[in-house]
Amino acid sequence: MTTEQLVSEIRKKKSFLCIGLDVDLNKIPEHLLQEDDPIFAFNKAIIDATHHLCVAYKPNTAFYEAYGIRGWQALQKTIAYLNENYPEIFTIADAKRGDIGNTSTMYAKAFFEDMAFDSVTIAPYMGKDSVEPFLAFKDKHTILLALTSNQGAFDFQTKKIDENELYKEVLKVSKTYKNAENLMYVVGATKAEYLAEIRDIIPESFLLVPGVGAQGGNLQDVCKYGMAKNVGLLINSSRGIIYASKNSDFAQAAALKAKEMQIDMAALL
Amino acid sequence: MTTEQLVSEIRKKKSFLCIGLDVDLNKIPEHLLQEDDPIFAFNKAIIDATHHLCVAYKPNTAFYEAYGIRGWQALQKTIAYLNENYPEIFTIADAKRGDIGNTSTMYAKAFFEDMAFDSVTIAPYMGKDSVEPFLAFKDKHTILLALTSNQGAFDFQTKKIDENELYKEVLKVSKTYKNAENLMYVVGATKAEYLAEIRDIIPESFLLVPGVGAQGGNLQDVCKYGMAKNVGLLINSSRGIIYASKNSDFAQAAALKAKEMQIDMAALL
Repeated sequence: MTTEQLVSEIRKKKSFLCIGLDVDLNKIPEHLLQEDDPIFAFNKAIIDATHHLCVAYKPNTAFYEAYGIRGWQALQKTIAYLNENYPEIFTIADAKRGDIGNTSTMYAKAFFEDMAFDSVTIAPYMGKDSVEPFLAFKDKHTILLALTSNQGAFDFQTKKIDENELYKEVLKVSKTYKNAENLMYVVGATKAEYLAEIRDIIPESFLLVPGVGAQGGNLQDVCKYGMAKNVGLLINSSRGIIYASKNSDFAQAAALKAKEMQIDMAALL
Repeated sequence: MTTEQLVSEIRKKKSFLCIGLDVDLNKIPEHLLQEDDPIFAFNKAIIDATHHLCVAYKPNTAFYEAYGIRGWQALQKTIAYLNENYPEIFTIADAKRGDIGNTSTMYAKAFFEDMAFDSVTIAPYMGKDSVEPFLAFKDKHTILLALTSNQGAFDFQTKKIDENELYKEVLKVSKTYKNAENLMYVVGATKAEYLAEIRDIIPESFLLVPGVGAQGGNLQDVCKYGMAKNVGLLINSSRGIIYASKNSDFAQAAALKAKEMQIDMAALL
């Protein structure tokens, strides 16, 4: 999917919501555990109930890997279901991968070709030759960790290299990578006050923003400091939406939560 | 496995060789492609031929994910085969994961419990709460990326934060994490001259050292600057060993290459 197509969907749906599909079998409604594939059954119900309210879905691969082969099967079925039924949706493999060149190419093939995700999240620590293999894929997007929403972000990301914090160095250096136009960045909503300076460095790049809701980030602050001409924001919510209810009405409850966020977003657009 | 058991194996075998099981179907002998599971068939043959010459195996998960479900099945069969037949071998999931706390816990369960690896490689960018969930597992080891063997290491890892390069900051800060005694570190052989200063910060921690062979690193230099009282080194070789021959003698050819390295290592111990 091109960035223009994503922006067009955002305008049409008046939403820049991304829903995180982080499925924990201890948290889904019990009746689903009878299904052949409870994880996929849960995702399918959530997707069918919320697809008109969001523009992106983001499964975090950890939650699938934790269930071994059946977890990977559920992930493959989920992305295939999305691509077949809702091709207008932007899909994000939240995998936080990154390795030396030939190995990154293997990861890129896994997520962009084998599973046909539109994008994947990548850790920047190993630098240029760990990122560029992902950037080489046309109309695919590499979402680089810049400033994450967790407390550990202060261990290294906000420490100063010369004049700049490490996360700003990541923004600046990555802009020089080949096919850098395919880059997006993760910036946590819990650090909304950093967004103004981030926009000075990358005025138009899309930002994937986790941390609104459960982690304490604020939607209005993120938009105030982070919104770009092309919107440039994907606000992720996972637990706050998908676990809105543990009863048989879980999908409708998720849709209600998503609708609340979509209404707030429409007002901010 | 405890560190003491690993050291004991190193002394017994006079080897600190780790063999990287990075299986590319384009590079393995063609006759194996007829097998039900060519990746596992290849790994099994390599392991049976080399297990007495090395102390560790390191499958890089990228090479398995690239083949989807059948790749994951091959990975699970490989680790199960190792744990059942060669429990004295130290196993490393080269996964380079790392995420916010609850998500890192899911990854830790996937690698330490579901697959029962002894260790996993982790990227440090997200800091303390992305690493500690791995460290919480008893007799399991978290191998943190410090200074990697690739060119991109110079993008961020070697840049200075105050007086120290980022990779040294990673070493120093991670020493303060809870259960830090379960930490090991990745330091590329291509940067052997950095090892003396690294040993000033972490005198006894085990280092996983990629980059000898194909990437140009030198075994003697690594040992000169990096060997500790408890040896403290695992030298990884992947392509140089497992692809020593593409013919029916591939396993014996791999054993010959591993034997060459083991002999060099015995002389250095």
